[in-house]
Amino acid sequence: MTKAIENEALQRFTERIALIKSYEEALALLYWDLRTGAPRKGMEVRSEAIGQLSGQSFKLSTAPELGEWLAALEAPDTYKTLTETQQRLVTETRKDYDRSVKIPPKLYQEYVVLTSQAESMWEEAKAKSDYASFEPYLDKIIGYTNQFIELWGVKGTRYDTLLDMYEPGMTTAQLDRVFGGLREKLVPLSAAIAASPHQPDTGFLKQDYPKDAQKQFSKFILEQMGFDFGAGRLDESVHPFATGLSPGDVRITTRYLADDVTSALFGTIHEGGHALYEQNIGNDLIGTTLATGTSMGIHESQSRFWENVIGRSKSFWSRYYGDLQRQFPGQLEVPAEDFYRATNVVRPSLIRIEADELTYNLHIIIRYEIEKLIFNEGVKASELPALWNAKYKEYLGIEPEHDGEGVLQDVHWSGGAFGYFPSYSLGNMYAAQFTDTLERALPNVWELVEAGNLIPIKDWLTDKIYRFGKLRTPSELIEGITGKPLDPDYLVAYLKKKYTDIYKL
Amino acid sequence: MTKAIENEALQRFTERIALIKSYEEALALLYWDLRTGAPRKGMEVRSEAIGQLSGQSFKLSTAPELGEWLAALEAPDTYKTLTETQQRLVTETRKDYDRSVKIPPKLYQEYVVLTSQAESMWEEAKAKSDYASFEPYLDKIIGYTNQFIELWGVKGTRYDTLLDMYEPGMTTAQLDRVFGGLREKLVPLSAAIAASPHQPDTGFLKQDYPKDAQKQFSKFILEQMGFDFGAGRLDESVHPFATGLSPGDVRITTRYLADDVTSALFGTIHEGGHALYEQNIGNDLIGTTLATGTSMGIHESQSRFWENVIGRSKSFWSRYYGDLQRQFPGQLEVPAEDFYRATNVVRPSLIRIEADELTYNLHIIIRYEIEKLIFNEGVKASELPALWNAKYKEYLGIEPEHDGEGVLQDVHWSGGAFGYFPSYSLGNMYAAQFTDTLERALPNVWELVEAGNLIPIKDWLTDKIYRFGKLRTPSELIEGITGKPLDPDYLVAYLKKKYTDIYKL
Repeated sequence: MTKAIENEALQRFTERIALIKSYEEALALLYWDLRTGAPRKGMEVRSEAIGQLSGQSFKLSTAPELGEWLAALEAPDTYKTLTETQQRLVTETRKDYDRSVKIPPKLYQEYVVLTSQAESMWEEAKAKSDYASFEPYLDKIIGYTNQFIELWGVKGTRYDTLLDMYEPGMTTAQLDRVFGGLREKLVPLSAAIAASPHQPDTGFLKQDYPKDAQKQFSKFILEQMGFDFGAGRLDESVHPFATGLSPGDVRITTRYLADDVTSALFGTIHEGGHALYEQNIGNDLIGTTLATGTSMGIHESQSRFWENVIGRSKSFWSRYYGDLQRQFPGQLEVPAEDFYRATNVVRPSLIRIEADELTYNLHIIIRYEIEKLIFNEGVKASELPALWNAKYKEYLGIEPEHDGEGVLQDVHWSGGAFGYFPSYSLGNMYAAQFTDTLERALPNVWELVEAGNLIPIKDWLTDKIYRFGKLRTPSELIEGITGKPLDPDYLVAYLKKKYTDIYKL
Repeated sequence: MTKAIENEALQRFTERIALIKSYEEALALLYWDLRTGAPRKGMEVRSEAIGQLSGQSFKLSTAPELGEWLAALEAPDTYKTLTETQQRLVTETRKDYDRSVKIPPKLYQEYVVLTSQAESMWEEAKAKSDYASFEPYLDKIIGYTNQFIELWGVKGTRYDTLLDMYEPGMTTAQLDRVFGGLREKLVPLSAAIAASPHQPDTGFLKQDYPKDAQKQFSKFILEQMGFDFGAGRLDESVHPFATGLSPGDVRITTRYLADDVTSALFGTIHEGGHALYEQNIGNDLIGTTLATGTSMGIHESQSRFWENVIGRSKSFWSRYYGDLQRQFPGQLEVPAEDFYRATNVVRPSLIRIEADELTYNLHIIIRYEIEKLIFNEGVKASELPALWNAKYKEYLGIEPEHDGEGVLQDVHWSGGAFGYFPSYSLGNMYAAQFTDTLERALPNVWELVEAGNLIPIKDWLTDKIYRFGKLRTPSELIEGITGKPLDPDYLVAYLKKKYTDIYKL
């Protein structure tokens, strides 16, 4: 191949990537807007616009010429002349390309319109606890997803095809083992906790906390974490989320509950962890499709690290509890230790996003098992509420009183994100393993937290993880940083240590 | 031509229009977001995305196949089988198509990126009163505009080519006559007003008005006008604007001045007039490029009608002054009549958007003359501050102390909107002429206003103007509704009557 043709392919490939990235930015804003304040009567036209633009972007990502440029750049003599970033762009784009060309554009566009409408319908259905109004949408989304699985081709089980999308290489067989191992070790720990006579008092947490004061404190903590408000914003939505339009525009949302100061607080720190990842991606990746987190599991490791490892630590509250007390004068009069113990209470609950660090993994296992049933056993949307309630009873010993606090609680399925949930527990495991290395790299890390100096932690994570965006795979990161492959025992050890102290086991 | 080919052309043409409309919605949101709260550090990437998407939309609007479908649909035997809406879509699309194919896509895309950056730079330059930082952007925008004029072709003068874009058919020669006529009749009226011993007292207007209370009152008045908050929202920006993403999603912004209750109030009513137009476009036009106002002049007739004819009327304040007083307890103790007179004071001022109804036209004439000089006489960006200041001294007898209250005050030029300003005075003239008909169609119109029943007025305007979107041209509307072509004497008569009462001339 001549040099001129190579250069032409590289240039046009690079331009196409930039164009696709521009569609991603516009679509991220169209979605963000839908969920933070777009007028309801514009929803139908908006969904149409999202469908049209997604269709256009999809066409550009699956165009035959892109296949030709990729083939030209993959030729070994050309590939070796590319920079590391260009090489990874080629590899990542090839993967998406091969996956996407199997979906007919019209089918994909219908699906995007459907999920866009379904997300708004879900918000309403959840508020009214009206599963029947949402079921036909969910049923259709499952139908489309099954069509996609057929088109992509099944390796292992049908559900594996979905898992691979969020955590490359992950399989049902592996997750069965990992989740099995976790359950085996966490169940006795959970039992020991339940039997402890040293149960934290959480009664004082239930009070009226003025929303504006909550909002102010959320902003303050985000600033402490190093969230850059010049490159992001904080808004409200029914289900909190983070979205990175570009590293200079990273948006998070939270939800303020009048009678619970911890919901918005830890929700904000969680989304703030996602946001720190997106804000600190290297400048060299900006404007490319590599300028995002490398996998959902690694992304969740950052939100869970900031929310739980840092945000629910004794050191954190030894520094920030005084600020919180001053924010709600006269409302928090218990000592910092009591607040720390109350926010780390282990207690089976119905709502995943409000669950403690230990039982959280059971919430994930329930969703994982239901998703396996849907795609590997053909379970229908109409069966889900009963299935959901039965599993909650079996694993957590409690049952939802209505679907709003049951099967309707999460946004994920309304967006077609089947295979996503396991990422949360993967995130917990990655986070614990990273923390082990962090504690050796920065031996004074907990003194830094006690001093309210969180920036060196953010900087370490930026150096090791954030700046690489999609340049490193999850396994490259975990092995490169910690020297070992993913090992769930780090999470078990971390939880054991924490709860032994809190519950005096 | 066979029936099958006709149908194929119509179907593909209709799909293309829907696709172009989707880009318009996305771009409107990208701009709205930039101006209401997008993080600054994302600006550069955002501008790039806007440029890319505008380029894509431009390609779709100028594609050879669109030219072929248009030609097929314009064939007389086919054209006569189309519905009225389809016919107008063909005519309007042909006009835009012929105009656009003359601009090379790359040039247009550069221009869009430039104006997107320039609008943000302008905001900063205005805040700092730093014309030097904005001048290079303005200089480049003028350069691009001159290239476009060459490409489009000059009819009459170079500036006529720009005027036609905002008010189809309008020429420099016509505007010289109309503005000449207006000036001739308004100058003696202005002189009589200045000589009147009955000058309104405006001192009481300058107080601290809490921003939240202003915001509440703005929302209240919008509701009274029939603005549908289920199909729109109200936000803040440096320069107030209205944007219709679709009739179900119409957004307005306003700016609250702490020491002036009238600025946000009348600004909101003004943008609310634009919004009523966009919200009440007929359902049959939704998703087509006809779902917007027919011209800038007609659009401005609606904002100026609601702001001035209704919002600054004695009847309006006889109904709403009590509400305003209650909104600012103890702050507005003068009688309604005094408030009415104070908000209708005629006094030369520096800021166009705060000018009174009479001298407002002089602000427009200054901009019109400067734009004519730029494009017909080659005046440069560097000469504008001096030119601006000299004209203000000559026509209004006052001079800006800094460029922030002078040449930098308006957003328009930063977006390349040369030829737009005359629309405002055209709007005043259209509004006065429509009002004359309205008063005969609804003889009790001022009693309705006094009763706070503004909906029949909105309904009349919907029936006569709003629902048609771009289905009618400006001259079809003005002649169809009033039975006469545009005549500036209606505005003169309206102003004479109003000020004769207020100033007891």
